[in-house]
Amino acid sequence: MKDARFVISLRPVLNVLGFLHVGLATAMLIPAMVDVAARNADWQAFVMSSLITGLIGLLLSVAVGGSLGDGLNMRQTFILTTLSWVTLPAFGALPFLWLGVGYADAVFEAVSGFTTTGSTVLSGLDDLPPGLLVWRSLMQWMGGVGIIVMAIVLLPFLRIGGMQLFQSENSDRSEKIVARSIELVRLIGVSYLFLTGLCAAAFWATGMSPFDAVNHAFTTVGTGGYSTHDKSFGFFTNPATAWVAIVFMITGALPFVLIIQALRGAPLALWRDPQVRAFLGFIVLVSLAVTVYIGLVHRLPFEDALRLSAFNMIAIITGTGYAYGDYTTWGTPVVVLALLLKFVGGCTGSTTGGIKIFRFLVFFGTVRAHLRRMVRPNRVVPELYGNTRLTPELSFSVLAFLVVYMGTVGIITLLLAAFDLDLVTALSAAATSVGNVGPGLGPIIGPSGNFAPLPDGAKWILSFAMLMGRLELFTVIVLLDPDFWSR
Amino acid sequence: MKDARFVISLRPVLNVLGFLHVGLATAMLIPAMVDVAARNADWQAFVMSSLITGLIGLLLSVAVGGSLGDGLNMRQTFILTTLSWVTLPAFGALPFLWLGVGYADAVFEAVSGFTTTGSTVLSGLDDLPPGLLVWRSLMQWMGGVGIIVMAIVLLPFLRIGGMQLFQSENSDRSEKIVARSIELVRLIGVSYLFLTGLCAAAFWATGMSPFDAVNHAFTTVGTGGYSTHDKSFGFFTNPATAWVAIVFMITGALPFVLIIQALRGAPLALWRDPQVRAFLGFIVLVSLAVTVYIGLVHRLPFEDALRLSAFNMIAIITGTGYAYGDYTTWGTPVVVLALLLKFVGGCTGSTTGGIKIFRFLVFFGTVRAHLRRMVRPNRVVPELYGNTRLTPELSFSVLAFLVVYMGTVGIITLLLAAFDLDLVTALSAAATSVGNVGPGLGPIIGPSGNFAPLPDGAKWILSFAMLMGRLELFTVIVLLDPDFWSR
Repeated sequence: MKDARFVISLRPVLNVLGFLHVGLATAMLIPAMVDVAARNADWQAFVMSSLITGLIGLLLSVAVGGSLGDGLNMRQTFILTTLSWVTLPAFGALPFLWLGVGYADAVFEAVSGFTTTGSTVLSGLDDLPPGLLVWRSLMQWMGGVGIIVMAIVLLPFLRIGGMQLFQSENSDRSEKIVARSIELVRLIGVSYLFLTGLCAAAFWATGMSPFDAVNHAFTTVGTGGYSTHDKSFGFFTNPATAWVAIVFMITGALPFVLIIQALRGAPLALWRDPQVRAFLGFIVLVSLAVTVYIGLVHRLPFEDALRLSAFNMIAIITGTGYAYGDYTTWGTPVVVLALLLKFVGGCTGSTTGGIKIFRFLVFFGTVRAHLRRMVRPNRVVPELYGNTRLTPELSFSVLAFLVVYMGTVGIITLLLAAFDLDLVTALSAAATSVGNVGPGLGPIIGPSGNFAPLPDGAKWILSFAMLMGRLELFTVIVLLDPDFWSR
Repeated sequence: MKDARFVISLRPVLNVLGFLHVGLATAMLIPAMVDVAARNADWQAFVMSSLITGLIGLLLSVAVGGSLGDGLNMRQTFILTTLSWVTLPAFGALPFLWLGVGYADAVFEAVSGFTTTGSTVLSGLDDLPPGLLVWRSLMQWMGGVGIIVMAIVLLPFLRIGGMQLFQSENSDRSEKIVARSIELVRLIGVSYLFLTGLCAAAFWATGMSPFDAVNHAFTTVGTGGYSTHDKSFGFFTNPATAWVAIVFMITGALPFVLIIQALRGAPLALWRDPQVRAFLGFIVLVSLAVTVYIGLVHRLPFEDALRLSAFNMIAIITGTGYAYGDYTTWGTPVVVLALLLKFVGGCTGSTTGGIKIFRFLVFFGTVRAHLRRMVRPNRVVPELYGNTRLTPELSFSVLAFLVVYMGTVGIITLLLAAFDLDLVTALSAAATSVGNVGPGLGPIIGPSGNFAPLPDGAKWILSFAMLMGRLELFTVIVLLDPDFWSR
């Protein structure tokens, strides 16, 4: 009886999961068509993967899955969220497997794609068939919109790491999630598509081929970082191309709800948001500091120094992770700064990973209030986020998130070191994977290298770390508590 | 009028500070006597330093300082705590200056001494005059007892990083601090002296010279780590010597209040303490793991592997930082583990630095309760430390401490990188200084090296970092908030 109830409670979860896989199967037909057009035999890999994925999706939805009925309760939502981010990349890896890539590499590449991390095990990109390149870009684009939907619709409801701060009428009651979310998801989809088109057009206008423009628009707006060239953005010599990328990486790091408002004619909402102001101020500050440093040390002209530093620092902060030259040759201060920037992230409700700006703001406000209470215990000091008064529960969620985040990076570093990776490689790989950034540091996984030489065990750990980061840690950790599964 | 009131309020602080400096001046006569006995001219440096320190101490106490009267209020206690830890090492550096050591080096060595860090800029220790060696050991011994008094008497009252958990009747009311603390301080002093004597006797029994036995007893019980030999504990070939050091490093990391109870015939109190259990379990676990690893990889006999790993891991965890062979040659997994262990620390109310065990326990209990509230928001989940129910304010203090701790290590790393230190050197130096451990990692500051080759700017930053760590961060940070100084 107890078991039966448990099985039933998973049925609406499998229903949604099935539909997501049918969607994935449909998306796989796009690279198939590209390969057919290019007269490349790889189309078969995508069609076969699409058939398998689609059949399993249908099976889950129709045969196993049950009606959504009253929507999902909290535990079902936790399970659905984690399960989708594990199974979609697993099926997304099928085309790679079909084309002869090993298990660890195929899963790593797909997870890095869907989580918009952008770390890669593939090289010789310039000579790869177009279908495969499109599939990599497409995974990041789909992952990007998936993250936005998750961050706006699900995480505030699950109260992950202080995201209850962003609860709206769309996320306040579980029964209403399904019903009310459809309109919001539609708006997100349309705006995301519009931004991608705009980005592709801008890339094209600066001299990219249409193929490159579309691929890089997918991975820029999704702040993913996969490229169609081994030299990544270093391939494109027109400075204007880099500036377009900078603008759209920044856009991809802004709260998508406010972008929608801006597109609907209310751009001021963006400027009034505390995390947007802090984020823009921070990237300007960091970019200028590095500009001055490399301008002085390497005697570069101002526009070169500004473009190189802005591109690379913003690529790291937003977790896009494109390479544009190798900033690790600029000197130790920049390398260490880059490592720390991997923790930062963009705004919440965007496609970026990492800790994210609002948590730093909550943290600073919280610590200031804490200091004042230490000195004058009887004084009531309100903690503010913008004009919103923070509850202790929320401050607490954010602090716990920060500690668990850094602890996770530490544990992943230690696990990687067990595979004999040196400290710089292990630590930067941990930071870049949990933060969903892309390249690491050091000769192996730095901006000029890739993740292929790592042992398979390290790739599995990093795939897990990318998913942990993408699911904002607590979505997964909750499932590890036996208490979650009891009753 | 406003200014006048401000000056008056500092007078009792200066009174206490003056007495502390008179004590320091007296202590300086010990190395002077040692050098006189050894017919070494250095005794003049110590006598002159003692005169200067003593005169200024008297001046502060008698001429400037005011009566303690009702004791110290909270803000005065904050100022006194930070001020003593800044000025005592500054005067403690005088003998080094007198003997021709540069400013940055002299202050670094004295700060590293008083904070019981044990990082050193001196080499050729085996040939240094005995007075200088005694002075280094003595600073760590005095620093050690200073830390215990601060941690037991002052910090719980100041509620630093969750230390309010250890408020006793000795620390609950500001007016009573001075009156009630005297008996406690006397007890601490007697027990500390007794343990030191026991340790010295044990070292002597295993074959150390009396001079080495006393010096190393000073720096073992104080978990400091200064040695009288460049090879540190590698100089002593008798395995029993290493085991004695292991036992007393562990003792130095236990809560001193419970050690006093044990010495008075109630040893079970130690075993009943949650942080003692967790600490002992943790060091056994880590030591055994490393024993197995180096036993298998380097094919060492069991006793050698166990002694080498236990000594080195416990030296790091307790922040003693003695070298005993070079564990950085054991392979990358041990190096990365060593870096993470620099964050751990021992029990609160001991001479160790770092985050400390009770904060991990509070953190784990807090996060577990947090996870359960996430899944079932309406359920009340008590957070426990041992059998004590934690208040939200306390959990919050601990979480804030953890975040600020890791943030401080990050910022110090970045500042060191600005002096062109490589990532491994900068990061390990930051972790080892904030954690008051001792050696860092990498070819420069690793267990076989020392801090002399670093640029002066880096040494000043590290001196600041050692003090920050020793003062448990918030004692200093509070002073940086303009709000502290207002009204």
